[in-house]
Amino acid sequence: MSNSENPPQDPISKVESNKDLRITLIGTGTIGLSFAAFHLSHLLGPSQLTIYDTRADVAQHVEENLPPFFAEKPSQASISNIRIAPSLEAALKDAHIVQESGPENLDFKRKLWAEVEKHAPENALLWSSTSGIPASQQAQDMKEKSRVLVVHPYNPPHIMPLLELVPSRDTSEEVIERTCEFWTKRGRVPVHIKKETRGFVANRLAFALLREAIHLVNEGVVSVGEIDSIVESSMGPRWAVAGPFKSYYVGGGPAGLEGFFDNIGGTVQDCWDDSGKLNVGDGWETKIFKQTKETYGSVDVGERDRITRRLLDVLDQEKSYTTRSSAN
Amino acid sequence: MSNSENPPQDPISKVESNKDLRITLIGTGTIGLSFAAFHLSHLLGPSQLTIYDTRADVAQHVEENLPPFFAEKPSQASISNIRIAPSLEAALKDAHIVQESGPENLDFKRKLWAEVEKHAPENALLWSSTSGIPASQQAQDMKEKSRVLVVHPYNPPHIMPLLELVPSRDTSEEVIERTCEFWTKRGRVPVHIKKETRGFVANRLAFALLREAIHLVNEGVVSVGEIDSIVESSMGPRWAVAGPFKSYYVGGGPAGLEGFFDNIGGTVQDCWDDSGKLNVGDGWETKIFKQTKETYGSVDVGERDRITRRLLDVLDQEKSYTTRSSAN
Repeated sequence: MSNSENPPQDPISKVESNKDLRITLIGTGTIGLSFAAFHLSHLLGPSQLTIYDTRADVAQHVEENLPPFFAEKPSQASISNIRIAPSLEAALKDAHIVQESGPENLDFKRKLWAEVEKHAPENALLWSSTSGIPASQQAQDMKEKSRVLVVHPYNPPHIMPLLELVPSRDTSEEVIERTCEFWTKRGRVPVHIKKETRGFVANRLAFALLREAIHLVNEGVVSVGEIDSIVESSMGPRWAVAGPFKSYYVGGGPAGLEGFFDNIGGTVQDCWDDSGKLNVGDGWETKIFKQTKETYGSVDVGERDRITRRLLDVLDQEKSYTTRSSAN
Repeated sequence: MSNSENPPQDPISKVESNKDLRITLIGTGTIGLSFAAFHLSHLLGPSQLTIYDTRADVAQHVEENLPPFFAEKPSQASISNIRIAPSLEAALKDAHIVQESGPENLDFKRKLWAEVEKHAPENALLWSSTSGIPASQQAQDMKEKSRVLVVHPYNPPHIMPLLELVPSRDTSEEVIERTCEFWTKRGRVPVHIKKETRGFVANRLAFALLREAIHLVNEGVVSVGEIDSIVESSMGPRWAVAGPFKSYYVGGGPAGLEGFFDNIGGTVQDCWDDSGKLNVGDGWETKIFKQTKETYGSVDVGERDRITRRLLDVLDQEKSYTTRSSAN
């Protein structure tokens, strides 16, 4: 079912030559506006970015809070390419992509997708930015459950290249492929997560390290600032170039990862055995929260993002290495 | 006890003006040669780098395998500043710093330090590159146990800035301070680890993430190459700029790390509860080793290091931000 008289043909797979792409964003929180900045900086020709939000001052809110990123990137688009939709129905009409970054609330998302299904073109891609609500649950009230795909960014998405694509069992291969192609063509790194795992993948990895970091600070081995210094001067830059498997594969010499575990598997196991098993609410919070606040006070996020972009520009220039490294 | 007639006065704390610094390296494996390249690129004036190794072809081995790093860095030193010592005693005479990167073998290190104590000037700094043998055990046979300090690099040390300084309970504050000053003045990041923790800190953090990564590949959620793509396009570049505590502190908004845990502490705990508890030898090895080898084949380590150095150069230029961020 489609409200569009001329539903677009294969709009995403021809996106490089598609100068009439219509993206609709729902929700104007931090993530929604960050995606808006990204899309705006990558629009071609008369392509359209439509924003819908129930808040009354949405136009003013977008104008005041849109990250300035788009203005620094070569693109024919300007903020005038953003259209604020007067209603959800108007926002959905003729859209090739509908991307929701609304409240992290299952009820909201279930109702939203059921409504979207009524008004959006039937081959429009439907993406959710959720960091935790599986597509399978979001699509419960839809007739066609194959359409919804979680496209989980690493915050902020106008800077960070990763997008975790997390389908439900119902999500169609075609939706995954078209989504993958969209992001790859824009220089981003979409990764297809094969199971609806709690927390997806990036956060699970990061939280595992965070747990050990909290444990070591809690035990008085190092401070909060020292943990960050350690990571910033070792794993951070290393893993920006070569992830953990590649790094340890190299570290094992000619025998690869097996050589690595032959050499120091005992130490790895000792570290795992000795690792902290602390939980949220165990009482470490007071000390860790206080120390972190005392260490950092007020942080200039713009400065962090500017430096991160410089690093990502270097990595983009070296893409031939990175692409080869992430073949799988 | 010293064999030097004129033991150097406070040699390290005046190192910037010290143009007659004598560093002795013991061991010419990968780590030893990497440290040699670093020191050579930072020698001033007639300073001397002495290398001792029991292998017969040590001079040829050093010449052939020294990383080319030193040649690219501005320094008055050349490979001719390296002196190959004919004996341990000759290597130690007049040394300001004795740095061992010998076999990871407690017996070797115990005997070495007892011997070093007999021949090196009494205020020479004694550093071990060990990744796991505590200073307290290494110093067992010494008269003056306050002298040995673990200075654990992140491999390769001629590229990576981190040095974990891990004293025993006996190691003197003065030794720690002089060591810290030496590395800081050379633009490196020495971090004082307060307890002789198994695996120290950097490896513990990395191994915690690796455990979860292996678990997720083993469960078929993502592939080895996808784990690396995820980390390279999210945590890697982010943590190169702002470590995990700083990142989540920012992520919590005005309420900081407490705000972060208020918002998604439940998800964090769910991820921790659901995390893999696999151990070395559990049987995941066959699949993971094979997949890693198929993904990476032959890796150009020089290329990895070159790109890493480009990132570190950017971070060096942005040092004012990084320094502020790691205050503690």
